[in-house]
Amino acid sequence: MSIPRIVIVGAGFGGYAAARALRHAAADIVLIDRTNYHLFQPLLYQVATAALSPADIATATRSLLHRQANVRVVMGEVTGIDAGARRVKLAGIEDCPFDYLVIATGAASNFFGHDDWARHAWVIKTLEDATAIRGRLLGAFEWAESRTDPDEVRRLLTFIVVGGGPTGVELAGNIAELARSTLARDFRGIDPASARIILIEAGPALLASFPPKLSAYAGTALDALGVEIRLGTRVTAIDDAGLTAGGERLSAANVFWAAGAAAQPAARWLAVDAGHGGKVKVSADCRVPGFDRIFAIGDVAGQAGADGRPLPGLAAVAKQQGAYVGNWIARQLRGAPPPPPFRYRDLGTLAVIGRSRAVAVFGGLHLTGTIAWLLWSLVHLLLLTDFRSRFAVYLNWVWAWMTHGRSARLITDVPQLRRKDGHTTI
Amino acid sequence: MSIPRIVIVGAGFGGYAAARALRHAAADIVLIDRTNYHLFQPLLYQVATAALSPADIATATRSLLHRQANVRVVMGEVTGIDAGARRVKLAGIEDCPFDYLVIATGAASNFFGHDDWARHAWVIKTLEDATAIRGRLLGAFEWAESRTDPDEVRRLLTFIVVGGGPTGVELAGNIAELARSTLARDFRGIDPASARIILIEAGPALLASFPPKLSAYAGTALDALGVEIRLGTRVTAIDDAGLTAGGERLSAANVFWAAGAAAQPAARWLAVDAGHGGKVKVSADCRVPGFDRIFAIGDVAGQAGADGRPLPGLAAVAKQQGAYVGNWIARQLRGAPPPPPFRYRDLGTLAVIGRSRAVAVFGGLHLTGTIAWLLWSLVHLLLLTDFRSRFAVYLNWVWAWMTHGRSARLITDVPQLRRKDGHTTI
Repeated sequence: MSIPRIVIVGAGFGGYAAARALRHAAADIVLIDRTNYHLFQPLLYQVATAALSPADIATATRSLLHRQANVRVVMGEVTGIDAGARRVKLAGIEDCPFDYLVIATGAASNFFGHDDWARHAWVIKTLEDATAIRGRLLGAFEWAESRTDPDEVRRLLTFIVVGGGPTGVELAGNIAELARSTLARDFRGIDPASARIILIEAGPALLASFPPKLSAYAGTALDALGVEIRLGTRVTAIDDAGLTAGGERLSAANVFWAAGAAAQPAARWLAVDAGHGGKVKVSADCRVPGFDRIFAIGDVAGQAGADGRPLPGLAAVAKQQGAYVGNWIARQLRGAPPPPPFRYRDLGTLAVIGRSRAVAVFGGLHLTGTIAWLLWSLVHLLLLTDFRSRFAVYLNWVWAWMTHGRSARLITDVPQLRRKDGHTTI
Repeated sequence: MSIPRIVIVGAGFGGYAAARALRHAAADIVLIDRTNYHLFQPLLYQVATAALSPADIATATRSLLHRQANVRVVMGEVTGIDAGARRVKLAGIEDCPFDYLVIATGAASNFFGHDDWARHAWVIKTLEDATAIRGRLLGAFEWAESRTDPDEVRRLLTFIVVGGGPTGVELAGNIAELARSTLARDFRGIDPASARIILIEAGPALLASFPPKLSAYAGTALDALGVEIRLGTRVTAIDDAGLTAGGERLSAANVFWAAGAAAQPAARWLAVDAGHGGKVKVSADCRVPGFDRIFAIGDVAGQAGADGRPLPGLAAVAKQQGAYVGNWIARQLRGAPPPPPFRYRDLGTLAVIGRSRAVAVFGGLHLTGTIAWLLWSLVHLLLLTDFRSRFAVYLNWVWAWMTHGRSARLITDVPQLRRKDGHTTI
């Protein structure tokens, strides 16, 4: 009998956890990802705001797994799945056959049917997105410095963030700190502190998944940083000159989109109905109904929690599902009965607004301010997968805390601030 | 009387030194650069070989100069100079008038008339070049891992470096260490240590500017790292499949070009005859003959040293010329007589081959091996312009020394390893 082949697509939190949970399995594991690194996505906004370097939050996947002899890492682009023949199709290289398949492809941004907005608004999902936003942010101040038309300066120094969830709140807070602290003394022709940062949320509250008291705190904290908050405001148009929201026209050189997630094309690959946000519906053991040995986990999977509501798109959910699925397969391989259905253990959630400002929920315990911020820093350092990253991030944070400086103020790979479609604008 | 305007084009070693030398001058200084950072070019090859991150060797120019109130930093692209009207022309923004002009635009790569080779060979002059090479290097191993045709694997794992000067030697040595140490245990289908690294030099020796004993040491040290060295070998063709050198056809997925420098277009801007490598000839006080108040320094300038031979293209030369010119102008502004002609003080030269292998010349003192390497590390740390970079580089080096790891093994911004001309190949 040959060794069973387990293919994992995606080396994010879910896929990596699944691979690790299979470390003692007598299996031939293939972990496929488009990139060569495992990315700590929760800190992506810090790369976008020049506080951290890409290498601080991304580590070569194969170096993380080099001691796990039963796993092979493949950098490749999955183009489809032939579920009948049990093969994963890959661009440019041979199909990869599987006995078990774990789909952990995550989510891209969701423009809710307005796909043309993608040409005018910047998303933050990949390292390239983050360095592009970094270039846009820093570039806006650079250009404003050498412009004389006050309307143009005003447009360049207006930054709009759409989406009041954790990513939008973190991004808006950090842009405000970048403008008001880091850059404050570095310009001669403009006052970076005069930058206008507008956060737009369609719903009635920021951080809607947090208790109302903490949502309110986030609003107050952002307000103290000089962020203009528009709640209950729906965006109706985005173009190169700015956007229209709640009937108001706002002129801005940069619109950042942090408003929604769309699961990657796994539902199409499997020809199953996609649920909310394109997610693949899975049963209580994370298997895709109709497929014996195909699992979906993390942001690509739609699963209900104990309360019947869909599980949130958090790293913790993906990691726990990955560990569960790895364990499920390992048990089946050694002939043990399957584990009980997956249950998400909520270990708490955190969101940071800025320096010494954060919110945290641990069961009934609700924290705000410096203590939540310290806790947030500690938890994120501990969650970073590799020791070197942990140390690098720690030192960058200490340095930033002491100096208000940011370690990676580089405009790179955005010549003339090129947009993704090749269209050039400032 | 209005305050005199001094425009400096280029924020590299020369331009930055000139600006600093003018810190006490009653002048309005404008420092223009295409990028927003001051780059420590001598360590660019370490970014290209994943040992350092871009932010470790690049710092926002305006943050370095924020305390110097008489300087304004402008990110912009110079398109020409109107010497008669004393104006620097800039893309997209208004011309910048000057009373004194310092041209410190550096050098690009020189293909010696074979400009089509630029489409097939990778150069290392900018941060973007370095991250592109990093992606090509790491990508070659990633692709080889999932290929089955032995010829294709061999092609992917062959790396050719053209040019046996310091950059070529450093690059070849580091590629060898990347393959033989860092990546050695991370792959399953290929043996990274089997990679072939070929260093081609047209002249009779490596590191031709060093004493023969040190050149020979460099050859021995590279040989110990498994680099194949071809001296006296001229490249006659480069294409997508590899290159032809000394009549021999070599198949390789990656050719890196470190063979020559061509001064940036300052000679054309001034409509003066360009010297060797496109350099602007300057007199003993670094002024461009025929222009009273226009200076050229660093790699863009052609100046003879005390021995009558052209000064080498070193950071030290650019820095000393920058300081000299800044001082020259400052003296003229306060009515002091001009300083004596510029004299380059050779404080020593260093080149590194790999871990514990380097060469150093200080006057009559010639060093090799560990002591030269330690000296090289120390000197480069001290030369790094800002404290944070110094600390980050130091920690990365210590970590790399202890673990053979490299801190920035990321393939980014080279989707499908796109070439500069948009042509996609592996």
